[in-house]
Parts: sequence; structure tokens; C-alpha cells
Amino acid sequence: MRLNSAILAIILVISNYAPAQSKNAAERLGYPRDSKLLIIHADDLAVAHSQDAASFDALDKGAVTSASIMVPCPWLTEVAEYAKAHPEVDLGLHLTLTAEWKNFRWGPIESKDKVPSLLGPDGYLWPEVAPAIQHIKVDEAESELRAQIEHANAIGIHPTHVDSHMGVLFSRPDLMKMYVKVAHEYKLPFLGMLSFNLPPEVKSLFSDKDILVDSVVMANPSIQAANWKNFYLDAIKNLKPGLTEIIVHLAHDDAESQAVMVDHPDYGAAWRQRDYDVITSPEFKKALEDNHIILIHWSDLKKLLN
Amino acid sequence: MRLNSAILAIILVISNYAPAQSKNAAERLGYPRDSKLLIIHADDLAVAHSQDAASFDALDKGAVTSASIMVPCPWLTEVAEYAKAHPEVDLGLHLTLTAEWKNFRWGPIESKDKVPSLLGPDGYLWPEVAPAIQHIKVDEAESELRAQIEHANAIGIHPTHVDSHMGVLFSRPDLMKMYVKVAHEYKLPFLGMLSFNLPPEVKSLFSDKDILVDSVVMANPSIQAANWKNFYLDAIKNLKPGLTEIIVHLAHDDAESQAVMVDHPDYGAAWRQRDYDVITSPEFKKALEDNHIILIHWSDLKKLLN
Repeated sequence: MRLNSAILAIILVISNYAPAQSKNAAERLGYPRDSKLLIIHADDLAVAHSQDAASFDALDKGAVTSASIMVPCPWLTEVAEYAKAHPEVDLGLHLTLTAEWKNFRWGPIESKDKVPSLLGPDGYLWPEVAPAIQHIKVDEAESELRAQIEHANAIGIHPTHVDSHMGVLFSRPDLMKMYVKVAHEYKLPFLGMLSFNLPPEVKSLFSDKDILVDSVVMANPSIQAANWKNFYLDAIKNLKPGLTEIIVHLAHDDAESQAVMVDHPDYGAAWRQRDYDVITSPEFKKALEDNHIILIHWSDLKKLLN
Repeated sequence: MRLNSAILAIILVISNYAPAQSKNAAERLGYPRDSKLLIIHADDLAVAHSQDAASFDALDKGAVTSASIMVPCPWLTEVAEYAKAHPEVDLGLHLTLTAEWKNFRWGPIESKDKVPSLLGPDGYLWPEVAPAIQHIKVDEAESELRAQIEHANAIGIHPTHVDSHMGVLFSRPDLMKMYVKVAHEYKLPFLGMLSFNLPPEVKSLFSDKDILVDSVVMANPSIQAANWKNFYLDAIKNLKPGLTEIIVHLAHDDAESQAVMVDHPDYGAAWRQRDYDVITSPEFKKALEDNHIILIHWSDLKKLLN
């Protein structure tokens, strides 16, 4: 997920919403009610080989518990090979309706003439959230989401969950409703974004079985590079009881990712290297232990749905 | 161009065909009839950043005179940026009907449901020449070629010529005829493959204005890595009068190109690094001078068409 600052603001107001059900997520998973549950999640798999290599390494080390995949991106087959070789690894779909990089673009999985509202004038997916949510027709977005899920399945990826690249699906109530509907239909847990201003027609779609995260932690452009590790260590130290997802973007700061993310320091190559360095560091691991964090996977939540 | 060995065999029998016109290519370009004209051509631009970086460097140094671009590939915008910044550089389109790498795939520019015969069962372009020419319908291939040319123009690439990735368009007479027809319509010179067994209905399409190459030189899997430089130096030493194109594939042997070309040493990352090392070497430059080779560009041939 790469989010613009407006979307980020929506996410950051999420906190400790108590779903209308008797047991909370921790209890349903067999832990005490006040446990601190954490998913450490790597976004953007398949966007670049460098992203895949750093993310696979973090998954292999257990430095992240889960990751999600951008199906329309060109490195999808590399992730499918990894998924088939590591069936135990927790991989979801990072449902993608934007193609945000300057010199490295992709289109939809669905036939272009069936989803014209998803395409910018250059024929690729919209580069930013604002034009995307201005133009996208919800029925065309639904066709594309279904095409992405079906295509992933067809090449051997069996997702544990879904979420939304750049938060596009959280940015319009009709898109959010459609996203929840599609997730329910495929029996997939979804990253649920609850905020106090979420329209009732969206909230009414959530079922008792759905588990919504209580908070999301993600680095943002206000954090200085020198403070990167402290940002994450403080987040762990201050983690509240409930279910939190830390979202990271992992890549090596190499020629490929520098070229993909050219002219875009926010969520750029150096940013992703910093994320990788922190979450694979001994200090981060120690902070998890010291603060009695229980690491969980989206597959744990999926089991509760079925 | 990456060619399988069958196609390679067809190319390598091309030699010194004398077009039915009074002046040969050299004379039409203002050189003596027996001049040795050479286009040094880099294929596969836009396939990977590593390919672009090595090819731009060779173009900037004059180590190659020309290059061609794979329009459906994800790094197209990077090449468009380069083309706009270097309007003098000779860039054509490497018309693409295959997506041959294991873990890095692309689809067509045209809407998928308009060109179903171009797609393998996984929804990407066919990975090899054999299934491509078995399944592709010529009218759908024509739609895709037109879409590639129009898309290149739309993002600021104004091609000097066209040729064919992996030689697919040279591999079936109806595809070759369509390719010549489209090239004529867009007033673009095309890489013309003349062999003695070329069907008369294809030969009859060539006009007096068309300039066909007399021979093509390209490294092939029978050449040992240790003999790479000698292969090219011998080719220069043995160049015959007429128009020759040396086709090279340039990339750095780095993490990205190793991942793109994984499990495929032929035309792989190390191969492409060797090509780059030889054609940018002082020995290669000296061989061109010593053998009185006249370097020309596709744009020189384009001027003769208009």
C-alpha cells in the first residue's frame, strides 16, 4: 500500500473500535482478551524483483508474518513460484487499481475495453488516488478485482486475505462496499478500515465473523530517515491491546528499485531499504519480545471465517 | 530480438540478395557501390531497466547506431523519457508478440478480448515462437502491431523503423506480408529478411523504395563466452560490401536482469553483459575503423522513403 496523505489521515484515526460481538479477535484466536496481536505485513509484492527479493527474505526470516501481491504487475510469476515453493507462507492480494511510478507502468488484468474507467489517457491504470476515485466506475472496478483474484488462483497463488494498494478501495464508500462484498464471496479476510466517519451502509456490511484491525501503523513522510528505527520501536512499545497491522514496504536500495521509484523519495528505494533494515534488526525483534507481542498471520484470521 | 534456433537458421542464410533496382543501398545513401555499410543495433529496449541503462549508454557513446523498443513492456515510459531528451537518437519499434521470460511477463497493448489468439492460457503473450505462430490470427496480430505503433506515438516515441521480437513476424508468410503492409502504411523502414525460400507473395510486396539488409550478424548459443570478442571482431573483418545489421542485446549482468532472464543462459544476463563489453570496447571500435566500415542509422534509410 502506498497512500497519499489524505488517505493516510483516514487510516490514522482508526483506533480500538469494538466490533459488536461477544468475543474480540484475541479471544477468538485463543488468547486473553487484552493481548497485543500484531500482523507485520509487507506490501507491494510483484512490483519489482528487488521488492520480491527483500520481501521473500523477510518472510523467510519471520521478520514479517504476511505480505500481499500486486497481481497486474510484471513480476507476478516470480511470486507465484515462491508461493508454490513455500505453501506455508501467508500471501494475500494487494488489490490494485493504480500504477503510480513514473517510468514503470502496468495496465489491468481485465480486458481494457471492459474497464475503460480504470485507465488514464495513457492507457495504464491511473497514477494517483485522486483521478482514480474521480473516474473509476464501481462495476468496472469489481470486474478487475475479480479478474485479479481469478488470475492469481489460476497461476497457483491461493490468497490468505485481500487489501488495497494505495487505499483506493477505502476512498469511496461504493468501492469499499464492493470490496467487502467480493472478499465475503471469496471467503477471504480483508484489511478493514474502520473510522468514525465510515458511512453506515459500509459498516452494515461487516458480519460478526469479520475481524477488523484496531489500528494500522505505517511510516509516513513526516518521519526523518534518522528516526526510522525509533518510529517502529516506539510503535511496538506503545502498542495497545487489540489487533494491529504494521505495514512495511521492503526492497533493496538498488539500481532497479531506484529506477522504478525515480523522482519519488516518499515510499522510494531508500525508504524501502530502511523498512527492511529496521524490521530485520535484532532491536526490532527484541522489542517484540520485551513487549509481549503476539505475532499472527492473516491465515489465522482466515481459519475463523471457514 | 531473441530468436530460437530454427528462426536463426533462416536469418543466417540471408546473403547478398540484389534487389531489382538500379542503385544499391550504398549508392542511394551517397556512398560508392561496394561500400560496407553497417547498422549496429541494440534490441529489446523497455524490457528491463538494466537493458535500458546499458543500451542508452551504448547509444550515447555511439557504440550502437540504433535500437528498437518493446512497446508492451513495463519500462516503456523510461525509454519515452530518453527519446524525448535525445530526439536525435535512432529508435525503432521491436514489434512484440511474445513474452518469453519465466518470471517477468507482459500482455498485449490491445484489449485482450480483441486479440485472444495472441494470448497463452495464462493470459500473457505466448512465451515461445512455436506456439505463437501456431495460434496467432493475422488480423489480431495486425491490430496489436497498430496498437503498439499508435501507443508509442502517443507517449512521444516517433520510431525510425520497425523489426520483430524473436522473429515471429518473419516466421509465417501471412505475418510477414502484414508486417510489410503496416510498415509501408506508416512509412517506416523495416528489417527485411530475405532468404531464397521466401514465398513470392511476400517478395512481391517489397517496393523499389524498400532497402533490405544483405546480411544479419547475431551471436548465437554455439559461441563460447571466451570467444565472444573474436566472434564480433571476425564478423567485422569479414564484412562484405552491402548493408549489414549487427544485432546485439545489451544489459548489465545485475540482480534485475539475472532475475528477468533466470534459467535461460541463452540471451541471458551474462550474455548481454558480454555483448555490451565487446561493442563498447576499443578493439571493436578499431576494427570498424581498420575495415573502413561506414556506420549508418535506420533514420538514414527512413529519409529515402519519404
